[in-house]
Amino acid sequence: MAEATSVRPLSAETIDTWNYEADVVIAGYGVAGASAAVEAARAGAEVLVLERAGGWGGAASLAGGFIYLGGGTALQKALGFEDTPANMKTFMMAALGPGADEEKITDYCEGSADHYNWLVECGVPFKESFYGQPGWETPFDDGLMYSGGENSAPFSTIATPAPRGHIPQMADKKVGEKGGGYMLMKPLVDTATALGVQAQYDMRVQTLITDASGRVVGVQAKQYGKDVFVRARKGVVLATGSFAYNKEMVESFAPRLIGRPGAAIEEHDGRAIRMAQALGADLAHMDATEVAFFGDPQMMVRGILVNGRGQRYVNEDTYPGRIGQLTLLQNDNQAYLIIDEEAYEEANTTPTSTPFFRFQPKWVAETVEELESEMGLPEGTLQATVEVYNKHAASGQDPVLGKKSEWVKPIGSPVAALDLRNFTAGFTLGGLRTNTDSEVLHVSGDPIPGLFAAGRCTAGVCAWGYASGTSLGDGSFFGRRAGISAARG
Amino acid sequence: MAEATSVRPLSAETIDTWNYEADVVIAGYGVAGASAAVEAARAGAEVLVLERAGGWGGAASLAGGFIYLGGGTALQKALGFEDTPANMKTFMMAALGPGADEEKITDYCEGSADHYNWLVECGVPFKESFYGQPGWETPFDDGLMYSGGENSAPFSTIATPAPRGHIPQMADKKVGEKGGGYMLMKPLVDTATALGVQAQYDMRVQTLITDASGRVVGVQAKQYGKDVFVRARKGVVLATGSFAYNKEMVESFAPRLIGRPGAAIEEHDGRAIRMAQALGADLAHMDATEVAFFGDPQMMVRGILVNGRGQRYVNEDTYPGRIGQLTLLQNDNQAYLIIDEEAYEEANTTPTSTPFFRFQPKWVAETVEELESEMGLPEGTLQATVEVYNKHAASGQDPVLGKKSEWVKPIGSPVAALDLRNFTAGFTLGGLRTNTDSEVLHVSGDPIPGLFAAGRCTAGVCAWGYASGTSLGDGSFFGRRAGISAARG
Repeated sequence: MAEATSVRPLSAETIDTWNYEADVVIAGYGVAGASAAVEAARAGAEVLVLERAGGWGGAASLAGGFIYLGGGTALQKALGFEDTPANMKTFMMAALGPGADEEKITDYCEGSADHYNWLVECGVPFKESFYGQPGWETPFDDGLMYSGGENSAPFSTIATPAPRGHIPQMADKKVGEKGGGYMLMKPLVDTATALGVQAQYDMRVQTLITDASGRVVGVQAKQYGKDVFVRARKGVVLATGSFAYNKEMVESFAPRLIGRPGAAIEEHDGRAIRMAQALGADLAHMDATEVAFFGDPQMMVRGILVNGRGQRYVNEDTYPGRIGQLTLLQNDNQAYLIIDEEAYEEANTTPTSTPFFRFQPKWVAETVEELESEMGLPEGTLQATVEVYNKHAASGQDPVLGKKSEWVKPIGSPVAALDLRNFTAGFTLGGLRTNTDSEVLHVSGDPIPGLFAAGRCTAGVCAWGYASGTSLGDGSFFGRRAGISAARG
Repeated sequence: MAEATSVRPLSAETIDTWNYEADVVIAGYGVAGASAAVEAARAGAEVLVLERAGGWGGAASLAGGFIYLGGGTALQKALGFEDTPANMKTFMMAALGPGADEEKITDYCEGSADHYNWLVECGVPFKESFYGQPGWETPFDDGLMYSGGENSAPFSTIATPAPRGHIPQMADKKVGEKGGGYMLMKPLVDTATALGVQAQYDMRVQTLITDASGRVVGVQAKQYGKDVFVRARKGVVLATGSFAYNKEMVESFAPRLIGRPGAAIEEHDGRAIRMAQALGADLAHMDATEVAFFGDPQMMVRGILVNGRGQRYVNEDTYPGRIGQLTLLQNDNQAYLIIDEEAYEEANTTPTSTPFFRFQPKWVAETVEELESEMGLPEGTLQATVEVYNKHAASGQDPVLGKKSEWVKPIGSPVAALDLRNFTAGFTLGGLRTNTDSEVLHVSGDPIPGLFAAGRCTAGVCAWGYASGTSLGDGSFFGRRAGISAARG
């Protein structure tokens, strides 16, 4: 591989020969790039996508495929769930902040039902069935589930719960198989291709090219190790994903993720963010991170999660990503699951349990006192936690953290503890600051002419919190905007 | 006031008349600017400082004056404390991260004892006396105290405890009076003035001026509402403080501080960060924040701090700024202090108690059960916490959080709770990425020619954690470097 070039912008005057040329040049063929390509092509632009890997897909095609949509989508309605843009916004502002971008979220919620129709019209299949069990993903091919803790404390009392995780259907999917993301990406790329969108692969973008006025007019890339210059007559769209695999950027901005990138791909090197920063682009929410937690949701709801001091800190029936964030970011990545034998067996024999997440207990004892001692927790700590929990659980209540009654049951004997310390991984949510037209904003507040961006190289609807589907959601939603804006030029 | 100009850089070719000119132009006359001025002048440069306010001082002159120094300073030695650069580094890497800049911290620790001598030689007075009580600051004029939790869990077992908060002496200081920061700034500015350093006030810097090669050659500012152009023959030093008073930046980068700026001044508007970003300057640790907590340290050590669930979360004898961070950033800004009458009285009558921090209990009861009920905490929660604490306190132990034995005593009756919810304020620690020569780094990794920075407009030795004195510490230490580097040109 040829050595990387500086991220400092090049002057168009210095380019003798343009190797490729199009109206709209898109860096990255994941969900944001594909959505931008479709809309730019529909607006009449000649579109060229530059993809670093050997084929389209990005992180999206490897993902579960959740797209966070609501406000009354056709699927929500068909399955009997009521939702409005205002209700969706209330949830998103509460769950995705502090500091969430209200303008972006308002726009996203108001356009969400239409965005669902757009995806369907592009050929993305959604099965009309709802999955109501706790879990990261449906083990089947259901089209809808809760994906951000909407129906759990504290959000269930802030906004009317509605499931918004829309999952593309993988035909003939077997239990535990992945694939929703592929069934999102394939139709989008097919749609783009049918519209005449061209793609070049093994294209590592290196830096932006500007004209004398400062307008972005192209991209320099390495293709098969050689420098190539790509001219964009109308605009460049950056859609190259997060910076989860850029060690220096993670250390600088999201150091709790050092050594634990997850649900991202090595291509997520932050390069496009750097290229735009070199033009004075602004950033936002660089510390925000999605955090996956590898405890079995079916098991977690049937026990209690405690931190390194033996204290509960989260209602176990919430979105597992929220458990991950609270564990890594607020409890030093220390977590144990306390569960009695009966609940453990029940969780393991539930048909919807995910084998991938099944772990053996590390400690087992007849009493909580013994368990506490075996775990090395200070005397009395875990006992106090279980005693308070059991006292209220006897009447099906959890006044401390608000777990739903259906999952609240006193912890009996024998009792076990699963060691879930350092059991997290995640990807970054911060990036370039963009407006709702997906224009990249200069630190002066004005857009940088000719430059657009969407997906995880931008700060989207998430500021600190997360819900599954918000990445493919804002990536596709604001990817479309980027395509429309770039085609306008 | 004239309208602000864009932060986009100006081209030197467009400037007809330069209103001021010097070898080294420094924006900001706080601790970083003054330190840079002294060193640049000593290196033979003609130095001009541009200050936005009507006089020198910045946030530094209003501060308590702590300077974080160690590794065996003359004052530490005189007072019988052993410390080494390596020991100091071990503490700083543990307490100021995750993600702390090891290169910067190593350099800072190795140069720390010399930096103390430099301050003394500039005329900064330090009294040879140690203050060993818990507290934010000494109420007297002692020169040395612990300022980052060095002698408390968990750091006391990671590095050998040594006090490193060096405080300039305010002569004839009365109990409770502030002033250490003034006695830091006055000698530094006097030293600079004696060296011929010039200053212009009411100078609001607007943007940087570059030559055709991209080198920074000056600054545009507003003075008394009019545009002025200031030429820097050798270099520009940015030293204008944090972005705590820039609402948009706080929302984008450190949203938990929204509405609660503290220990900063309105001049801390982040402008210099924006000006440098417009040239492609990189950022680091934009989410990091100092967090002050307004509980009385003398009272906190004598009780237990619990969060909104009635759980302990911090050893009450640690640095109050650590209590502030853990409260705001990890416990939703919810804190109560549980203390019995005897301890409350003792804290209030201690000669070193700070009247400023004295608050009345909100709830008082004969038993913890009644107190818990009055506070509206779920039944059993606070009782369980106090029971576990008292059980171990009977033998002077705190195995849960490691509070020192001298402060561990069972909580008796009557018992009270102080409402310390939403009792925090703070300032931002993130900013421009600089190297140990205080050169501002472009996102490409190379320095931006002609541009230097120090103090709270840069990311210094703190990444997430904080210790009192690290801001004036790295501001003065790397401010000196900025002056030396800029004079070199």
